[in-house]
Amino acid sequence: MTASLHDLRPTASPSLEPLVQLTAADMNAVNQVILSRMQSQVPLIPELAGHLIAGGGKRMRPMLTCASAALCDYTGSRHHKLAAAVEFIHTATLLHDDVVDGSGMRRGKRTANLIWGNPSSVLVGDFLFSRAFELMVEDGSLKVLKILSHASAVIAEGEVAQLTAQRQIATNEDTYLHIIEAKTAALFSAACKIAPVVAEAGDDAEQALEAFGRNLGIAFQLVDDAIDYTSEEATSGKSLGDDFREGKMTLPIILAYARGQEADRAFWREAVSGDRVSDDDLAHAIRLLRDTQAISDTLERARLYARRALDAIAGFSNGKARAALTEAVEFAVARAY
Amino acid sequence: MTASLHDLRPTASPSLEPLVQLTAADMNAVNQVILSRMQSQVPLIPELAGHLIAGGGKRMRPMLTCASAALCDYTGSRHHKLAAAVEFIHTATLLHDDVVDGSGMRRGKRTANLIWGNPSSVLVGDFLFSRAFELMVEDGSLKVLKILSHASAVIAEGEVAQLTAQRQIATNEDTYLHIIEAKTAALFSAACKIAPVVAEAGDDAEQALEAFGRNLGIAFQLVDDAIDYTSEEATSGKSLGDDFREGKMTLPIILAYARGQEADRAFWREAVSGDRVSDDDLAHAIRLLRDTQAISDTLERARLYARRALDAIAGFSNGKARAALTEAVEFAVARAY
Repeated sequence: MTASLHDLRPTASPSLEPLVQLTAADMNAVNQVILSRMQSQVPLIPELAGHLIAGGGKRMRPMLTCASAALCDYTGSRHHKLAAAVEFIHTATLLHDDVVDGSGMRRGKRTANLIWGNPSSVLVGDFLFSRAFELMVEDGSLKVLKILSHASAVIAEGEVAQLTAQRQIATNEDTYLHIIEAKTAALFSAACKIAPVVAEAGDDAEQALEAFGRNLGIAFQLVDDAIDYTSEEATSGKSLGDDFREGKMTLPIILAYARGQEADRAFWREAVSGDRVSDDDLAHAIRLLRDTQAISDTLERARLYARRALDAIAGFSNGKARAALTEAVEFAVARAY
Repeated sequence: MTASLHDLRPTASPSLEPLVQLTAADMNAVNQVILSRMQSQVPLIPELAGHLIAGGGKRMRPMLTCASAALCDYTGSRHHKLAAAVEFIHTATLLHDDVVDGSGMRRGKRTANLIWGNPSSVLVGDFLFSRAFELMVEDGSLKVLKILSHASAVIAEGEVAQLTAQRQIATNEDTYLHIIEAKTAALFSAACKIAPVVAEAGDDAEQALEAFGRNLGIAFQLVDDAIDYTSEEATSGKSLGDDFREGKMTLPIILAYARGQEADRAFWREAVSGDRVSDDDLAHAIRLLRDTQAISDTLERARLYARRALDAIAGFSNGKARAALTEAVEFAVARAY
């Protein structure tokens, strides 16, 4: 590992492997908690939850909790239940998101709502969300409960704000950033911050890991929103142009619209309002995004937030954990290439 | 008030008024918390939440928290936030229920999902649920958090179990009781039990109020399920026969099916599987329910649970609070007449 803070080159081939290695033992324990606590006397619950939980997710958020604990030189095991709680909250929001978006594909598989129907996805999401709070209560830290209950409320607010902005061409970059900070960065941030809380690493460590998670979450979502226009289904696990067809006002569209000639702006207005959903329209949209540098500038902003994330944890002395987190950040922003 | 424990007569005209009077000052404070804490920077959230929260609900569950606190001679104010949290959890489940059932009417008004769409109802429900946990965390009692996070998980399990039993003619009374204990009685029970916790009234008081709430909740749901076949839209706030058309296996149908002749059983099989949804079919169903005493026996069971609820709180010395709760229980079972 020779990553340095200010050299986030698209030509590097960073990997999640160091993070996976660093957290392997912890994640075994976390996975045990996840599997045992998603059980229920009602068979549909583990069946549906297992489809998503076992279904190819990278477990990025609980890995971040574990890596943050390592960064704080924590040697206990309290973070295992809490990392599982974080994953349950994330899974609950995915189940509800897919209902909200009417999605049919997630991580390269058919979505739960497509297989079991929207009602089951809504209710099993509610179950996982409640179970997450039960896990936190078992741990017993009111500070952790405060961080994660607040994050959950912020996530829901972000999702409603995103719904409100959908098909609204006037959505600007500030509004977009506010939405992704809420719907994505809040949980990344909380997942990282709870580690110094259980490690009793102090206020500075909490603030540093809060900032690390928040900036990484923003970078992560920016890259996701770029990938929606650049990637193939086989690698992203979802269909190219999903956001386009749903009229989601992500940064690539916001930049392309702001920079476009009048004819292009007319195209975007029609597309966002739902009147341009063919494959030809998508191909035209991608051409416009490239011509206006909307994709490359979205990724440039992602790299900015990634740098901020790395600066936030520059003061921690655990070199191995810091190196693994650094390469994970680089991996997050390199996914789009 | 001259109600006695073992005289739950259908001819009495009990009222909620003593409960409303007993809890009026507390409920003013609770309503302040509800109104201030359903706010958000995202305008759709208070708009949608307010539709349901301001929309004619009796606030039965937070009133039960307040009355239970009075029963324990509690003079503090901690229960105000917690009663608001209970109402938020209840409102979140109503929002999600209406999405799950595809309901169009609730409390005599159009449902939120009909006005704002399913996505908004799902997400605002998630917000209220998270906000409920934030309120509990502010109070700071891990015991209360444990009671309500567990109740929330049980509610979700009950809702999934109900979904699984839908259109399944083989559903029996035990399964039905298990479902309503989870989806309805768990929150009644938790709403009552948290009062002796904040009042530090001791284990016996907690167990008594837990049993009171649980039995009242079961009675309440049994009556609700009878009303679905007996009441007019104007009084119940929902349409006659909603459960019938949705193929919900409630106790009236379970009893009528078990007691019916073969021709009647064939009718129920067709009805529950969704092949008998006309007004004539509903009229025929109601005749069969009456002929088999399915409605009156459902209500008789409700009275049994109501008696158990009253027996559970017989040992409390606060006569005014006990009288108000007693009449509220009588009111709950008298609604069907």
